[in-house]
Amino acid sequence: MSLAIPVGRIDTRASIEPLLAVSGPDMARVNELILAMAGSNVELIPEIAEHLISSGGKRLRPMLTIASALAHGYTGDAHVKLAASVEFMHTATLLHDDVVDESDLRRGKKTARTIWGNQASVLVGDFLLGQAFKMMVEVGSLAALHILSSASAVIAEGEVWQLSAAKRMTTSEADYMAVVDAKTAALFAAAAEVGPVIAGAGEAERLAMRNYGRSLGLAFQLVDDVLDYGGSSADLGKNTGDDFREGKITLPVILAYQAGNEEEKAFWREAMEHGRNGDEALARAKSLMHRHGALDATITRARSHGEAAYAAASNLPRTPSRDALLSVVEFCIDRVN
Amino acid sequence: MSLAIPVGRIDTRASIEPLLAVSGPDMARVNELILAMAGSNVELIPEIAEHLISSGGKRLRPMLTIASALAHGYTGDAHVKLAASVEFMHTATLLHDDVVDESDLRRGKKTARTIWGNQASVLVGDFLLGQAFKMMVEVGSLAALHILSSASAVIAEGEVWQLSAAKRMTTSEADYMAVVDAKTAALFAAAAEVGPVIAGAGEAERLAMRNYGRSLGLAFQLVDDVLDYGGSSADLGKNTGDDFREGKITLPVILAYQAGNEEEKAFWREAMEHGRNGDEALARAKSLMHRHGALDATITRARSHGEAAYAAASNLPRTPSRDALLSVVEFCIDRVN
Repeated sequence: MSLAIPVGRIDTRASIEPLLAVSGPDMARVNELILAMAGSNVELIPEIAEHLISSGGKRLRPMLTIASALAHGYTGDAHVKLAASVEFMHTATLLHDDVVDESDLRRGKKTARTIWGNQASVLVGDFLLGQAFKMMVEVGSLAALHILSSASAVIAEGEVWQLSAAKRMTTSEADYMAVVDAKTAALFAAAAEVGPVIAGAGEAERLAMRNYGRSLGLAFQLVDDVLDYGGSSADLGKNTGDDFREGKITLPVILAYQAGNEEEKAFWREAMEHGRNGDEALARAKSLMHRHGALDATITRARSHGEAAYAAASNLPRTPSRDALLSVVEFCIDRVN
Repeated sequence: MSLAIPVGRIDTRASIEPLLAVSGPDMARVNELILAMAGSNVELIPEIAEHLISSGGKRLRPMLTIASALAHGYTGDAHVKLAASVEFMHTATLLHDDVVDESDLRRGKKTARTIWGNQASVLVGDFLLGQAFKMMVEVGSLAALHILSSASAVIAEGEVWQLSAAKRMTTSEADYMAVVDAKTAALFAAAAEVGPVIAGAGEAERLAMRNYGRSLGLAFQLVDDVLDYGGSSADLGKNTGDDFREGKITLPVILAYQAGNEEEKAFWREAMEHGRNGDEALARAKSLMHRHGALDATITRARSHGEAAYAAASNLPRTPSRDALLSVVEFCIDRVN
């Protein structure tokens, strides 16, 4: 089964390479700025920041900001600062998330909190958030500030909601998607929307990029949820089953629970609500997901959001940046293969 | 010994009443806005926010914003939003501080973290910070945004510094004052400075209010440090000795340590670095502070900062707001009596 998006009207393929290529020169400046703004006389701050940077992911969010600005013909400097702000917001969220989730590993590496403690993670997260706002203010676009500050509040609200809903098997698919919308999609949406904003594009262009980012974020998170039950630890650099062991109720769990009989429902409640989540339970969880097609159903939903993202960016003028934004949608979904 | 500031050229007395009076009508709107912006469909958020509001302190920081705007002839609405932002920044800091310090009580009431847990405190703090930035952005003053976002980064940087320096008796007075400057004085300074900024006042007026706020913040914190060893639990609504039991190295500790003999120095290291901080140790700590005049010396420094604050606001045109800003300086220092 191919999971590539069956849109086909534009010649793109599932790859992050075009995005790396178009954003490369500006991302070099983003990375410099990140290092500079993570600098401090307080040793602990650059120490933790460098740990985060070196264990770093793909920097997908700041690349979206760069590419979406370029796709709208932007030629100034502000996209670099905004991209660095977006990455700092993301990093601050990760630091606080790891404290809240009591995570010991992220992408197969020790989390900051296991090395430096919860206290440092909370405070360095706050520092990075403060630096993010400083950079945004320097850009001087009130519209961009509005978008990013709103995202910041929405992300935190989603996290609190997840905390209160966590470990309750009564969480519905709609409930869960509302959390994903807030926790993950809001920052993707903001990262993409500030591009046309600083390029001086119109309301329709802003809306299109916002929809693109949001849909991509939703697809991205659902694929992540599947990978946590299906990817191999070596490939992903992330221990399969992390979500399960942390009692995180994600879409595959919800769908398997809803399709299960009474005995299976009891298993899920024991596992997610009462922490019976050892290796044996994980194996059973995976087996139930496969039996009820919960992973495939999650992928189907991810693909549908991916198609929405693809459609939202398809009307952009044909440029390498446009094609990069399209290819990365397919890439994000194809990760699951 | 009177601790009132011996300036005398203006007829003010140590009181918070004039500040409460001049800021009263606007503070009613600030409080409404705080409740509205702490609202959320996520139940936990208003629950925690109401706890913080009901256990609330004097709202000194937002009152400074209101009074300093009025003292510069401001007649618009922006000071209300900025004052609410300042209070949210402060509240978010308190929530995170309690997690970092593992505090169980604040002003004699259970802290949010003891009721709702560290996780909720971290995330609700993030939410309030996000809402603070949203309100600032709505005001639309880039200068005010710059001041407040810089303060946000400085506060967090100071907290991290304190974390790395915490429990080291080698902390010098200068080290400690740098932390107070960042942790406490930066927000007082920002709260006061945004007043003239939105009133369209000049650079000299901004600088004067910044100095006023900073000096008041320094004085305020030093008096707090003294109260923690000298105030009575009933009067202050705060358990005397909290700082000591949390191993917080404040100025009275530093001064007593520096003046102590080898045996006393060993006592302080045991207490602050190794957690021998029971009731008996606290009694000895107080006794050593009195023997070496550490509390009086701290008050002397607080008074000197108070005089600087008083001087910075003295040149304002004579209005009830100006007098309120002056009276509250004396009030902050007189708390120690």
